[in-house]
Amino acid sequence: MSPEKDPISVWQTRIDVSPFQRWLGLKVTAVSDGTLSVSMPWKEDLISNPNPPTMHGGIHASVIDLLGLYAILTTGNVCMATVDLRVDYHRPAGPSDIRAEASVIKLGSKISTAETKIFGPTDKLLSSGRGVYLMAT
Amino acid sequence: MSPEKDPISVWQTRIDVSPFQRWLGLKVTAVSDGTLSVSMPWKEDLISNPNPPTMHGGIHASVIDLLGLYAILTTGNVCMATVDLRVDYHRPAGPSDIRAEASVIKLGSKISTAETKIFGPTDKLLSSGRGVYLMAT
Amino acid sequence: MSPEKDPISVWQTRIDVSPFQRWLGLKVTAVSDGTLSVSMPWKEDLISNPNPPTMHGGIHASVIDLLGLYAILTTGNVCMATVDLRVDYHRPAGPSDIRAEASVIKLGSKISTAETKIFGPTDKLLSSGRGVYLMAT
Amino acid sequence: MSPEKDPISVWQTRIDVSPFQRWLGLKVTAVSDGTLSVSMPWKEDLISNPNPPTMHGGIHASVIDLLGLYAILTTGNVCMATVDLRVDYHRPAGPSDIRAEASVIKLGSKISTAETKIFGPTDKLLSSGRGVYLMAT
Repeated sequence: MSPEKDPISVWQTRIDVSPFQRWLGLKVTAVSDGTLSVSMPWKEDLISNPNPPTMHGGIHASVIDLLGLYAILTTGNVCMATVDLRVDYHRPAGPSDIRAEASVIKLGSKISTAETKIFGPTDKLLSSGRGVYLMAT
Repeated sequence: MSPEKDPISVWQTRIDVSPFQRWLGLKVTAVSDGTLSVSMPWKEDLISNPNPPTMHGGIHASVIDLLGLYAILTTGNVCMATVDLRVDYHRPAGPSDIRAEASVIKLGSKISTAETKIFGPTDKLLSSGRGVYLMAT
Repeated sequence: MSPEKDPISVWQTRIDVSPFQRWLGLKVTAVSDGTLSVSMPWKEDLISNPNPPTMHGGIHASVIDLLGLYAILTTGNVCMATVDLRVDYHRPAGPSDIRAEASVIKLGSKISTAETKIFGPTDKLLSSGRGVYLMAT
Repeated sequence: MSPEKDPISVWQTRIDVSPFQRWLGLKVTAVSDGTLSVSMPWKEDLISNPNPPTMHGGIHASVIDLLGLYAILTTGNVCMATVDLRVDYHRPAGPSDIRAEASVIKLGSKISTAETKIFGPTDKLLSSGRGVYLMAT
């Protein structure tokens, strides 16, 4: 009956505060000071084009936006909002689960930057990008 | 029993081919050669932070990604994929319907660029951004 | 013998404080509250590839970075630094003078965004982009 | 008296084909299949604001643009042009030499992406960014 929860549960709970993030179905798989990793299962609601089915680019953008922000939060600093987001689409994302890894590039007092990479089933890099975040001051 | 459908219905049907785009609930409101406008109703599944409720930045990124692509398609040219996406978040997006307008910045034979602006209930610019798209050759 | 200098001279002087901006040879051509325009003559030092001669993309990026910042300054607010910069290259930039127009997209208390367009001799859009700037608070 | 030149000289010669790149004073320090590193000495022409002197952000953007392109060329593939460029400014860049490292993120048949990091005298990350490049097909 430890009062300490494991970090993965802690961050899962924080991510699941958001209805959209719950809808995405993200599962936290690893966390450290400045990094956060998740997996996300395939589902039909994520489809961009049905023939052949691919995951919508907006889903990738969403994961890159949110995971970068949470990676900054793992440092114990407080982020207020995303300032801007850049996403590179490297390969078509087929009908399969993905995993994503975010890490802090620069932690600043006013502005921080984080990078997220999204991988497909055979660890191919599907997309990657950066968010710039406004820190609470 | 006209064989001609109005352009708004045509583009609504094309957008609704995508399950994720149907889930977003986009409604085409205007279309011309190189521009496309939609409205999108608020719903709870779009929430990023519940206190106070704001629309998730990933939803804005999704709309900017997809609407820029369809704006290029309105020119009669064929896009294959988004190359990259840039989103600027200008103001917090509260619990309200949004509307979005996309227009082509540069139509190219290999690469095209489009810009999308998202407005809130009092026509305030909430976010804006650009997508770069690979053309079918 | 007016003590008031015309706005174009005022902004020319401010831009020319920077040795790199003097090296570029920028000439202020118009200014208003939130917009700034310049012309810039061709010179051989700007060449990227000599055969055929094109203007280096870094020169375009430099103009987009700096002109967006000065456009924000024309509003009377104070910018501290560029947070990030995005540049789209639309057409090859041949050996000719260019002109550039910057305008504020969003003026904020902490973060502002400006957009700059660069045109070639026949008013073709050669490149365009955005800078995000940190405001003095 | 080998007819083979060392790779550093080969890439130095290629970079120095460009008058603007010669003006920057780049020195190739390392090269491999998919990566390229340079150093660049401080000079007064690079100054953005004289008090205190900082290196112009456009110089950083120029280095990130060009070095990413050359990193792709080191793979033996042919790039035609930069499609777009994104630069994050992490810290003020004082009056000192810099060094930069570029590496390929994704080599594609139509589009490639490369990332470049610029470091200051104590190996602090001053800026970083990505270019997207159009491949010759």
